[in-house]
Amino acid sequence: MVSAPLPGGARAVARCDMLGVAPYSDTAEGLYRGYLMPAFYAALDAVAAWMTEAGMTVRRDAAANLIGRYEGSVPDAPALLIGSHIDSVRDAGRYDGPLGILLGIEAVAARAGSRLPFAIEVIAFGDEEGSRFPAAMLTSRAVAGTLDAGALELCDGDGVRLGELIDLAGYCSAARAPGTTLAYLEAHIEQGPVLEAEGLAVGTVTGIAAQLRYRVEVIGAAGHAGTCSMPLRRDALAGAAEMVLAVEAIARAAASDLVATVGTIEALPGAANVIAGSVRFTLEVRAGDAARRDTAAEAMLDRIHAIADARGLDFAIERVHDLPASPCDPALMDLLDAATVAAGQPVRRLVSGAGHDAMVMAALCPTAMLFVRCRDGISHNPAEHVDPADAEIALRVMLGFIERLGAAHAE
Amino acid sequence: MVSAPLPGGARAVARCDMLGVAPYSDTAEGLYRGYLMPAFYAALDAVAAWMTEAGMTVRRDAAANLIGRYEGSVPDAPALLIGSHIDSVRDAGRYDGPLGILLGIEAVAARAGSRLPFAIEVIAFGDEEGSRFPAAMLTSRAVAGTLDAGALELCDGDGVRLGELIDLAGYCSAARAPGTTLAYLEAHIEQGPVLEAEGLAVGTVTGIAAQLRYRVEVIGAAGHAGTCSMPLRRDALAGAAEMVLAVEAIARAAASDLVATVGTIEALPGAANVIAGSVRFTLEVRAGDAARRDTAAEAMLDRIHAIADARGLDFAIERVHDLPASPCDPALMDLLDAATVAAGQPVRRLVSGAGHDAMVMAALCPTAMLFVRCRDGISHNPAEHVDPADAEIALRVMLGFIERLGAAHAE
Repeated sequence: MVSAPLPGGARAVARCDMLGVAPYSDTAEGLYRGYLMPAFYAALDAVAAWMTEAGMTVRRDAAANLIGRYEGSVPDAPALLIGSHIDSVRDAGRYDGPLGILLGIEAVAARAGSRLPFAIEVIAFGDEEGSRFPAAMLTSRAVAGTLDAGALELCDGDGVRLGELIDLAGYCSAARAPGTTLAYLEAHIEQGPVLEAEGLAVGTVTGIAAQLRYRVEVIGAAGHAGTCSMPLRRDALAGAAEMVLAVEAIARAAASDLVATVGTIEALPGAANVIAGSVRFTLEVRAGDAARRDTAAEAMLDRIHAIADARGLDFAIERVHDLPASPCDPALMDLLDAATVAAGQPVRRLVSGAGHDAMVMAALCPTAMLFVRCRDGISHNPAEHVDPADAEIALRVMLGFIERLGAAHAE
Repeated sequence: MVSAPLPGGARAVARCDMLGVAPYSDTAEGLYRGYLMPAFYAALDAVAAWMTEAGMTVRRDAAANLIGRYEGSVPDAPALLIGSHIDSVRDAGRYDGPLGILLGIEAVAARAGSRLPFAIEVIAFGDEEGSRFPAAMLTSRAVAGTLDAGALELCDGDGVRLGELIDLAGYCSAARAPGTTLAYLEAHIEQGPVLEAEGLAVGTVTGIAAQLRYRVEVIGAAGHAGTCSMPLRRDALAGAAEMVLAVEAIARAAASDLVATVGTIEALPGAANVIAGSVRFTLEVRAGDAARRDTAAEAMLDRIHAIADARGLDFAIERVHDLPASPCDPALMDLLDAATVAAGQPVRRLVSGAGHDAMVMAALCPTAMLFVRCRDGISHNPAEHVDPADAEIALRVMLGFIERLGAAHAE
């Protein structure tokens, strides 16, 4: 041996880095790995080799998910499923998705021949990001059995039909039979700054936040910026500005996992010398708990109403979508917390504001998620970064979780 | 006679209405009368006929301005120049410009043969709006002698050169010789809601407001709308919203003719689920007095600075332009006020937030402007409306002004 092998966490990070360039990226500049594209299949081959090396038997399901299985002490025992997604957005970071798969492989490798009363399967989901077709989490929905085959009539940006690339008739046969999956565990970068701000390597996810999205239009009166005196104005942009601040104030006052964002704004007619006659903006509210989310959203809409009234403005609000929360399993959260303590780390529970395959898998089995600190909270960007030491801690927590789950099932 | 002739003010309004459709509009739907276009020449012909009918001798100058002259008691006496512009924006109202010309003609017609110690000339300026070429007030600048012949190398939207339509070499010979112009009087719709809000038909303009325009960029940190907790955000849009409200508050607190407007805003990257990393907006500040304007603008920039600091945001401010104020002549304002009182109307002085030919003519001679109420403050829009009764009051004030100017010059 010329050099000592890397510890598992560092190796998982190094493998993510390896998958960050050609042939594992479909673009020469910046990482992009679209579902069912050449880089996607190249990555599956690499991951399959690592799964085999870790002692797993490897197969692809009908949705092109890659699954490595490490049998338990009893043949055909139900499986603890560990995974994340192998596809990426355009100009992506290297860890969003692959890290969870590769840590799963390292967990199996680290257990080296010791069998549990259940199997461990590591899954590389093919599509979480909506990386090629205009629909996200196609492949976890197929596995969870929640995908409608009719929803597969999709074309990519070049007009290529999903059905030209894969057998749509058999796609939904990727669904796992009830009872074959004990639990789903996903490690994922936080994609936010909370762990870093608190100096923590990992956190136990309590669930995927419930999300509400609105389109708001504020209607005032356009006017000449020179000739309309201040008291006579019905300035839609000044009104919208007051609403943006009210939204921020209510979300801050909640002092919880609740977040609210106005991310887009447009003033019409949109000229420096014309008072805005109307303004459109989006409002998004998320919280781990739908009731708290709804209470805050209601307070925001009330304030929007009051501000419009006070300023003589009209407004229209349209609810664009309403996604329910997807809570993680309380017993599995306890196991993650215990494993975190055993790894010498403080316990931190936090909600995931972003969606993940885990929220889809919750329809099939109990789920658990472990967040791993990422630098500056940056993701979906080449600057995305994970410290190998943090990945090592995550791996230790995952191993502790598996051990505790094994103990619970041995009883 | 089949019907009684209309009073002068109503007739001026009726003639504006007549000029609002083909052949006096270049578009079949909505009024558009571009400088040196067919509708423009048709309108000059109509106006020339009305000038002749009112007893004036008519000529066109080298810039295609139409000028009717009504001699004074002394031949070749200096002239009181009364006018406004005949061109229009696209989809224009019917009174912005023509009303001032037609009221000038009515004033001469109403004086019917009674001579003053000065001539009265009524001028229809060819271009005030920048209606065809990318430069405004070309023709009043030619008359005032402030136009650089080199600035005439202009092309319209179809690539037609101004020089193909008119003799550029002689263009600037439209400049009036010093001493030949006693004063310039312009009646114009207010293009704002102040007179209407106060129940007034007319107002004495104190000058054209000084104007400052800035481009402001606020720089925060883009982030995932779901994963970045409220305390950790550096939301450029929330910061910009606070700045918009600060601008409004400072302008309101001035409780004067000062106005400030944020008319455009853009949040980047501009997605409902992404915290704004940067925001760009325009800031425009106008006041009748440059010093007051500058004091307010400085207070606004100070607040922008303080808000950015408090929120951990960066910012950049670029001054786009700085137009000086163009005050009207105090003695002429007094004459307009006296004539307003004599017409049984309350005196109201107000600044013009919009630019007018009068601001250009101030380089040549003392200027006076009379604002006429327009419905809902609307202009540059087919809904632009002037009550004939208000035009009648304006005409009486103009006649009173002329009489008082005559008396002053007879002394």
